[in-house]
Amino acid sequence: MNKNPANFVPLTPISFLHRTADVYGQNTSVIYENRIYTWSESRERCVRIASSLNSHGVMPGDTVSVLAFNTPEMFESHFSIPMAGAVLNSINVRLDAGTIAHILNDSNAKILLVDRELFEVASDALSISSSNPKVVLINDVFAESKPNVTENTIEYESLVENGDPSFKWQKPDDEWQPLSLNYTSGTTGQPKGVVYHHRGSYLMSMGTVIGWELPNHPVYLYSVPMFHCNGWGHAWTMAAVAGTVICLRAFSPEKVFDLLDRHKVTHFGGAPIMLNMLANAPKKIQKTFDREIKVMTAGAPPPAKVLESMMSLGFNVMHVYGLTETYGHILQAAPQTSWLSETPAGLAKLSSRQGVRFPMTEDVSVLDQETGEHVPPDGKTIGEIVIRCNTCMMGYLNNPQATKEVFADDWFHSGDLAVIHNDGYIQIKDRSKDIIISGGENISSVEVENVLYQHPSVGEAAVVAMPDETWGEVPCAFVELKSDQLVSENELIDFCKQNMATFKRPKKVVFGPLPKTATGKIQKHELRASVKDSGGV
Amino acid sequence: MNKNPANFVPLTPISFLHRTADVYGQNTSVIYENRIYTWSESRERCVRIASSLNSHGVMPGDTVSVLAFNTPEMFESHFSIPMAGAVLNSINVRLDAGTIAHILNDSNAKILLVDRELFEVASDALSISSSNPKVVLINDVFAESKPNVTENTIEYESLVENGDPSFKWQKPDDEWQPLSLNYTSGTTGQPKGVVYHHRGSYLMSMGTVIGWELPNHPVYLYSVPMFHCNGWGHAWTMAAVAGTVICLRAFSPEKVFDLLDRHKVTHFGGAPIMLNMLANAPKKIQKTFDREIKVMTAGAPPPAKVLESMMSLGFNVMHVYGLTETYGHILQAAPQTSWLSETPAGLAKLSSRQGVRFPMTEDVSVLDQETGEHVPPDGKTIGEIVIRCNTCMMGYLNNPQATKEVFADDWFHSGDLAVIHNDGYIQIKDRSKDIIISGGENISSVEVENVLYQHPSVGEAAVVAMPDETWGEVPCAFVELKSDQLVSENELIDFCKQNMATFKRPKKVVFGPLPKTATGKIQKHELRASVKDSGGV
Repeated sequence: MNKNPANFVPLTPISFLHRTADVYGQNTSVIYENRIYTWSESRERCVRIASSLNSHGVMPGDTVSVLAFNTPEMFESHFSIPMAGAVLNSINVRLDAGTIAHILNDSNAKILLVDRELFEVASDALSISSSNPKVVLINDVFAESKPNVTENTIEYESLVENGDPSFKWQKPDDEWQPLSLNYTSGTTGQPKGVVYHHRGSYLMSMGTVIGWELPNHPVYLYSVPMFHCNGWGHAWTMAAVAGTVICLRAFSPEKVFDLLDRHKVTHFGGAPIMLNMLANAPKKIQKTFDREIKVMTAGAPPPAKVLESMMSLGFNVMHVYGLTETYGHILQAAPQTSWLSETPAGLAKLSSRQGVRFPMTEDVSVLDQETGEHVPPDGKTIGEIVIRCNTCMMGYLNNPQATKEVFADDWFHSGDLAVIHNDGYIQIKDRSKDIIISGGENISSVEVENVLYQHPSVGEAAVVAMPDETWGEVPCAFVELKSDQLVSENELIDFCKQNMATFKRPKKVVFGPLPKTATGKIQKHELRASVKDSGGV
Repeated sequence: MNKNPANFVPLTPISFLHRTADVYGQNTSVIYENRIYTWSESRERCVRIASSLNSHGVMPGDTVSVLAFNTPEMFESHFSIPMAGAVLNSINVRLDAGTIAHILNDSNAKILLVDRELFEVASDALSISSSNPKVVLINDVFAESKPNVTENTIEYESLVENGDPSFKWQKPDDEWQPLSLNYTSGTTGQPKGVVYHHRGSYLMSMGTVIGWELPNHPVYLYSVPMFHCNGWGHAWTMAAVAGTVICLRAFSPEKVFDLLDRHKVTHFGGAPIMLNMLANAPKKIQKTFDREIKVMTAGAPPPAKVLESMMSLGFNVMHVYGLTETYGHILQAAPQTSWLSETPAGLAKLSSRQGVRFPMTEDVSVLDQETGEHVPPDGKTIGEIVIRCNTCMMGYLNNPQATKEVFADDWFHSGDLAVIHNDGYIQIKDRSKDIIISGGENISSVEVENVLYQHPSVGEAAVVAMPDETWGEVPCAFVELKSDQLVSENELIDFCKQNMATFKRPKKVVFGPLPKTATGKIQKHELRASVKDSGGV
C-alpha cells in the first residue's frame, strides 16, 4: 500500500487556481481600476507568463524577484512564478537600494519584475548588486510617477502575449520545495531570507478559511502589501475560495472607503495603522455599510483602541498574530460566545490579545526563558512564544547558523515575550528580539544603531521602540556622544535618512549616558521602560 | 533547511480535537438524547479511552472494530482509537454474521466495540471467526432491544472510568499511517478493506469546509451512518470547525424533524432515500424552519426528483459524489450563479449531476475505456471516472492484486461510467462495476449471484440494478433454471434472505434464458437495458 500518483499528490496552493479556474472560470478573479479578469483568464495569463519565464532562462529552483505594488501583476506572480518551477521573492517597496541589492545578491535573482514607479531605486540597486537579473517592467498606467526607463527591459505584458497558453506547468515534485522567499528584518543589520514551501502555503490557506470563517466567493480588498508574508497568503487563499481580489496600489482612507463601497467588499486586512487611519478619517470620507465587513489585522503593540474604533464603525475585526517566519498569522483572538456580553472596551481589550491557535497551527506555548518550562496560564508569568506548525519556514536562506538558533530545542523561537491568560489566550508583553514594528513594518534596532555608529560624533547608541499613537511604535535612539563632540537631534536623524530606508530613521534622539550592566552591556530594558513611563519620552 | 519538529508536523485529524478542546473547550461537542458533552469533556473521555485501549493490549497499528449506531461512543471512537495508535474499523450494522466474521478475520481486530442491540449478530460472528477480539459493550439505554449478554465483556464506560486522563497520546510518526479501515462491497463476494491514512482524513476535513462552506460552530445532525466512509469524515470535520454533533441512533422522519427543530440544526447529510422519506413524510410530521438548513447528499442514481422535493421544503441540498475508496465525497454539484435563474426542476437536474472537484480533489477525469483518452466535454461520450487526490485510499488490505488493478495507469479507477457536460460537470451514466446502490448501501451483484447459484434449481443467474422510486436501485435477478426444475420467485428471494444480509436480497426475479455473447458471456448490459426500458421490469 504505497504512495502512487493517484493517492498522493504534493500539496501546493497552485492547485487552488487550477480547480477554481475549472469550476468557477467565469467568476471575477481580480479587479484593478478599469482592469477586470476572470479566474479562467487569470489562469491563462499565469500559464503564459510561466512559459515566458522559462523562455527567458528561469530554471526550476531559480528565484524571480518582484518589486511592485498590489497590482494584478503582483497577484499573478504568486502563481506564474511557482508554475515556472521558480521561487517568488517579493521585495518590500520601501527598502533602500542597498538593502534591495543585498536581497538580489542573496537570492541570486534571475529576473526582477519592477513597477515603473520604483524603477529608480531598482536601477540603483542593480548598479551596486553583483547579481544581474533580467528586468521586467510593470508599466502601470496608474503609477503616481513614471521615471524614465533607461535600461534594457522586457514589458510585463509581452510575457503574456508571447507566452504559450498550452504550456504544461507542473506541480512540485515534492511539497517540501521552496515556493517563496520573504526577507525579514532580523536583529542583525541585513534582512534574512525566509523560505516558504508549497505544503505550508497550501495549509495556510486551508487553515485561514476555517479560522477566519471565509465563505465561498468573498470580495477581498488587497490592502495588505503582498510583499509582507506574501500578503498573509491571501492571494492563494482567495484562489481556494474562488474569491474576487480588489487590488489597492496605494493606501488612502478615501480610496479604501470608495473601493469597499463600489465593489461590495466583504473582507480585507491591514496593519493597525491602516485601521487607525480609517477610524480617524474625516466623516465626509467615511462610509457605513449595510453588511458586515470582516477585517483581519496584525501588528504590535496590541491595538485595543484601534480595534474598538473600527468595531464602532461596524467592522468585524479579528486580531491575529504571526511572523514572517510563520507565513503570517498563526494565532487569532478567536471570539468566544461569552464575549458577547462584554462592553465595547472590554471586547476590544480581549480581542487585542494575540490569542489562540489557528486550525493549522499545531502547537504554541510560552516557555520560561530561564527554565524552559511552560509558563502557567496566570496572565503574569512571562516567557517566550514558541511555535510548532506546518506553516513555519524551512529556514533562513544561506544562513544555517541563524536557522539552527531559531529552531533550538525543537521549537521555533519567536523572540516575543508573552503571558498566557487563564482562558488560554496569549498576550505579548515585550519582545526579546530588537525589533520595532512601525506602521506594520519591521525595523531592526541593530540596523539603526549600526548607522548611528557610522556618524563621527556618536560614541555609543541604543535604539528601542517608542510607543506612538499613529505608527504603533517608532524608533527612539539613545546616544552617548564622543567627548568634546556636539551634534543636534535633527542632524543625526538626517544622517540616518541618508543611510537607510527613510521609514527606519529614529523619530527621537535622547542624548546622555547609557545605562549598563556591570559587564558593560547596555540595558535596553531600562531604556524601554523610560520610554514607556514617559508616554513617549 | 531540513524538516524538524517545529516546521513539520504530520497531518492528522486528531489535531482538530486537540485545538478545539483548547480553544472552544466549553462549547458543546455532542448531544445524544439526555447526554451532553463539551469539547473539553470529549477530549478527556477520548484520552482516557485511548489509555484503556492500550491497557487492554491494543498496540500501535492494531485494529479496533466497532459495530455500533451513531451514538457518542461511535463518535468518540473516531478519536480515541487513533489516539491509542490503533486503526478504527467501523462495521456496517446491517451485515450478516458471516460477513462480519470475515471482516474481523481480515482486519485481525484486537477489540470489538459492539452496541448491545447488535450483540447477537456480533456473537454469531465471533463464534465463526478465527479472530478472538476482546468485546467492549456499548450498553445504550436507548437501544430498541436489549438481548442478553452471555459472554465476558467490558463495559464501554469502564474504559472511561478506568482510563488515565493524563495519558500522553501521540500524533502519528508519519501522516501516511493507517487511520481507519472501511469495508466496501466490491464486485467479488467478500468486501474489501479500504485503508485511510491520517493525511487524507485531515485534508478531507479541510476541503469539506470550503466545498460545503461550513462556518464555525455548525450544529450537525449525524444522520449519515459513521460506518459509511467514517460518516463522510464529518466527525473529524466537526472537530475542525468546533461544531456540535447531534447523534441519531435510528432514522425516522419524525425523529429527524424533531431533532432539526429542537437543536436548531444547521447541517446534516444523508442518502437520497433518507431525503426522500423526509420529503414524503406526512405533513403533520414535517416542520419548516426560519433558517437555511444545508444538506449534503450522495448516492446513485442521481436523485433529481428528490433534490427538487427537498429544495421545495427550503433545504439547501448539495449533491456530492465519491466512493469508500476516496474517503467519501470528492465531487460536488457546486452551485453556479447562473443557476439562480433556473426553474426548480432545472436546478434540481443540474444539481443531480455528480459535479466538479472538491477543493482537496486534485484531478478527476473521464477516460474512454477503449483508447484511454480523456473524453470530450460533450455530454455524450461515455468513459470511466478516474481520480487523483490525497483523499484516495492507501489500498485494499491484504489484497495487493485488487489494489494494483484499481490503481492502473496512475489513476484510481472508480468503475463508474460517466460523461462530461460542456460546463465541466460530470454525470454518471452507468457503472462498469457490478454494484447496486440501494438506499445508500452498496450491494455486490456477484455476491447475490453466488448465493443464487447455491440453490439446487438455479442453472444460471445474473443480477443487475433495477430503478426503484424508494431505494434508488434494488437488485433484480435474472435466472435460468436447470432443466426440469421449478421454483417460485418468492422461494428464491427467501433463499437469498437466509444466506446473506436481508437488504441484499433481490426484490424481483425474472425467469428465462439469459442473453449471451458468442463466447458465452452473459450480456448484463442488455439485462440492464430491459430493466430500464420497462420502468422496473
